[in-house]
Amino acid sequence: MPVVREKTNWCGWGWESMRYDFRGHRDYFLRWIGERLGVDALGTRIPPVAPGSIELPAIRLGPSDLAELGAIAGGDGALFTDPRTRLLHAAGRSLPDLLRLRRGEVPTAPDAVVLPADEAAVIAVMRLCRQRDWAVVPFGGGSSVVGGVDASDPSGRPVVTLDTTRLDRMTAFRPEDQCATFQAGIYGPDLEASLAVRGWELGHVPQSFEFSTLGGWIAARSSGQQSNQYGDIADLLVSCRIVTPEGVIATWDGPVSAAGPDLNQTLAGSEGTFGVITEATVRIHPKPAMHQIQAVLFPSFAEGTAALAAIVAAGLRMSYMRLSDEVETETYLKMSGPKLVQDAGLSALRLLGYRDRRCVALVGTEGEPDTVEREVSEAIAIAKKHRGLSLGASPAKNWHRDRYLHPYMRDDLLDAGIATETHETAVPWSRVAAVREDVRQSIEAAAAAQGRRAHVFAHLSHSYPTGTCIYFVLMYAVDAADPVGQWRPIKAAICDAVVRHGGTISHHHGVGLDHKPWLIHEKGATGLRLIAGARRAVDPTGICNPGKLIDL
Amino acid sequence: MPVVREKTNWCGWGWESMRYDFRGHRDYFLRWIGERLGVDALGTRIPPVAPGSIELPAIRLGPSDLAELGAIAGGDGALFTDPRTRLLHAAGRSLPDLLRLRRGEVPTAPDAVVLPADEAAVIAVMRLCRQRDWAVVPFGGGSSVVGGVDASDPSGRPVVTLDTTRLDRMTAFRPEDQCATFQAGIYGPDLEASLAVRGWELGHVPQSFEFSTLGGWIAARSSGQQSNQYGDIADLLVSCRIVTPEGVIATWDGPVSAAGPDLNQTLAGSEGTFGVITEATVRIHPKPAMHQIQAVLFPSFAEGTAALAAIVAAGLRMSYMRLSDEVETETYLKMSGPKLVQDAGLSALRLLGYRDRRCVALVGTEGEPDTVEREVSEAIAIAKKHRGLSLGASPAKNWHRDRYLHPYMRDDLLDAGIATETHETAVPWSRVAAVREDVRQSIEAAAAAQGRRAHVFAHLSHSYPTGTCIYFVLMYAVDAADPVGQWRPIKAAICDAVVRHGGTISHHHGVGLDHKPWLIHEKGATGLRLIAGARRAVDPTGICNPGKLIDL
Repeated sequence: MPVVREKTNWCGWGWESMRYDFRGHRDYFLRWIGERLGVDALGTRIPPVAPGSIELPAIRLGPSDLAELGAIAGGDGALFTDPRTRLLHAAGRSLPDLLRLRRGEVPTAPDAVVLPADEAAVIAVMRLCRQRDWAVVPFGGGSSVVGGVDASDPSGRPVVTLDTTRLDRMTAFRPEDQCATFQAGIYGPDLEASLAVRGWELGHVPQSFEFSTLGGWIAARSSGQQSNQYGDIADLLVSCRIVTPEGVIATWDGPVSAAGPDLNQTLAGSEGTFGVITEATVRIHPKPAMHQIQAVLFPSFAEGTAALAAIVAAGLRMSYMRLSDEVETETYLKMSGPKLVQDAGLSALRLLGYRDRRCVALVGTEGEPDTVEREVSEAIAIAKKHRGLSLGASPAKNWHRDRYLHPYMRDDLLDAGIATETHETAVPWSRVAAVREDVRQSIEAAAAAQGRRAHVFAHLSHSYPTGTCIYFVLMYAVDAADPVGQWRPIKAAICDAVVRHGGTISHHHGVGLDHKPWLIHEKGATGLRLIAGARRAVDPTGICNPGKLIDL
Repeated sequence: MPVVREKTNWCGWGWESMRYDFRGHRDYFLRWIGERLGVDALGTRIPPVAPGSIELPAIRLGPSDLAELGAIAGGDGALFTDPRTRLLHAAGRSLPDLLRLRRGEVPTAPDAVVLPADEAAVIAVMRLCRQRDWAVVPFGGGSSVVGGVDASDPSGRPVVTLDTTRLDRMTAFRPEDQCATFQAGIYGPDLEASLAVRGWELGHVPQSFEFSTLGGWIAARSSGQQSNQYGDIADLLVSCRIVTPEGVIATWDGPVSAAGPDLNQTLAGSEGTFGVITEATVRIHPKPAMHQIQAVLFPSFAEGTAALAAIVAAGLRMSYMRLSDEVETETYLKMSGPKLVQDAGLSALRLLGYRDRRCVALVGTEGEPDTVEREVSEAIAIAKKHRGLSLGASPAKNWHRDRYLHPYMRDDLLDAGIATETHETAVPWSRVAAVREDVRQSIEAAAAAQGRRAHVFAHLSHSYPTGTCIYFVLMYAVDAADPVGQWRPIKAAICDAVVRHGGTISHHHGVGLDHKPWLIHEKGATGLRLIAGARRAVDPTGICNPGKLIDL
């Protein structure tokens, strides 16, 4: 098992040793959020069980099967059946995953975990699984928050989890064609490090950056924090190789083709249900000379939204563009402790009428200094037309520094009995206000039906000429008796509200198990049939990541 | 039949009344090209046969079938079986199409042409054709140059050509979401006119702009002359509706989704083999305030290529960016008559060493004046680093004025016994030189094997960070005895050379019948199987545009 996974938290986000410390303001924030939710968060402590106490499902593959699988997967060190490896590959990092894991509930786990070291071994594993009718669950960083890598098969076949993280090398660097080729199991930091030494970068930074892989990004159609400038991973994808039960597909390696449907865009988002992505060529660019992010305060979310739409419409290529709503703005201030309000000089704003409905936006970009300076100042000028007040670079620096840390907060809050769920969608600009309001009300109603309060906030995280991504965060006090049963109607309320307004069930998290019931609202019955037909052609027995995304 | 089609040339490009007159230099150019090809072009005159003399294949649908089809297609004026309508829907506008038509050879023609006035009628026609096992050939402008709309079915079923051009309305205008919705049969000029009155535009201008439809652009993954700036039609596509034999697919209407494979990008390029596109929502933008195009002369094609790559890499959004190779530069000068060389002040360039290998590039963009001025001058500055010599705006004006006229030249040259074929591909930047050289040599060798000479030139027409489109034009003297038999090995030589270098079989013309044998080089056997599986799910009996793109 690659070293990186050994040091990760078996029931939470990221490194085992890492905690989100709220920069020393944990008690302050817990008191505040507890008051909002009507619970004593500060006085609550519900730690996870000891992992050694967990009973995993029995392994259903016999010794000779395992020996054969191990041999074709690459021999020594290519197959694992020990409890810790199985546990670390049992689930992803969705809220229900964490709720179950913390209680020691592991309903499904891989019967074996294989770590092939090259594509030939992936092909051999796929062939054997096809012959034996074993499920194959591709597993990159395992950071799915939608049940995308659960080691489960609805039809009950044995599950082989295929961990791709040994496929971790750059295989071609072609600056003249502005692209580079990597094996698909490479983690974000390793990918960027191999480009950085050459002065180049990919610039794809999802929040999971440290714990997700190139193949996972493609399989789940990932977006990153700078996708506004560089495009999401589907835009950055030049070509890829995928091992399916019916053979390898190598998509065309070139800029643009009119020769039939775009295979890259069919494989991107296939979430392991078509096979295992083993390699990809992606567009890269020289490392930008500088970046600049400015914070802007808007008196209302509506004005901030209009400003972002106008900035995109003006063709300004902001790599960072994020607008927090009133509640998120307040929540982040509370997370930063009592002093930040004064530090940022925000108290004076009360006089200007920015007090209660204020929304902070971050706007910035990177590139050549001249271009960055010009485009950021043009963006700020547009923001001003929408009553945006420039706060300078300092608030943005805090966000940029902490941008990979926020997922850790979920685990700290779970210790205090507070669940944090996220859900994101995208809609045309004209539907932003309605969907935001409906989702918030739906969450509050679903919580109220359980006799609870919910704390809901949102931000716009990725903006396009035709619309934007809305990212919701909600916090509520966990029902210790049945946390997953409590979560389910809340999740359903969100998804129902999103599709009611024509929002996508996911802008960048994917579908997996959790969003699958709502996919039909987006694709339609005939659209789902088309995708299933494509899958059936390459995975006729449905062994690839069964149960996720789409059925045959 | 819509009026527009009645005035079109039955055996050639565009309007029946229009001729490319070489701006008065026809004789000058014919003498020059005749010398190059070793024939007396000026003394040759091979006009097309009279269309009334053509014998069309017998109609295979009986009176009651036709009556039923006409009724469900919309009653009066929705069904045509007259010879002229059948002739105008028999084929597209590829070179072999024209070679056959001019000789009065019409091996296949639709048994009936229907023109539904709404989507409900399209659905009804599709349902009847499914029941009766008749082929349905979707037909927009009919401008395909790859055999994409031929009224043929390899398995010999009757063919109903479904002309979409009565579906010609804008159905939604949503400036706040930077998009508009149109029925798919709307022609380019009508689409832009309906936006222009509102101050907006789509900005998609393929050379076929006047004679092609929105649905056709999507079905064939069209690119336009300004796609460098605005994206090709697949990029501009927000959502669409397609009527398949198994039901309607309405793709999701929003900016970006991670919920599974992208249906838009599967339907774009489906070339009618999945069904009939009836409506589409596309990204639009406010009409730009100005445009500016500059001509630049490079001493070599390699230096011009490097300059274009550098301009794209710098992130400059040129809407026009085109580099003619040496032979194309010379050919266009000859087409413009003996005076242009002096007019453009080119003669002085001999002193500067630009004489023999000179290549003209056009570089320009449109938008806000400040941005246009800045970006064009930055682009020219980059060109200068690659020894590009600015020629100012005047040569670019001629090209811009004539940009929809060049296809007419093909017919005028055919009258003089000279065939003009085009073929385009896209490759990574690093392969431009090799593929250009190989295609040229392959064409010359194929012509030589027939005892002929070929005149071959090329330009780069669309450029991307990762590569570029190379557009080849070739001219050769027609073998009047067997023009299609003569064309076939020449076409094959080009396609073989293109795929030998990993080029796409088409960057923007599509696949149709003509490119189909080479598609496997790009998609692979498993990739083709995946696409066929998707098609089979929605068109299980293969009635939609049979024989084109991909078989079941």
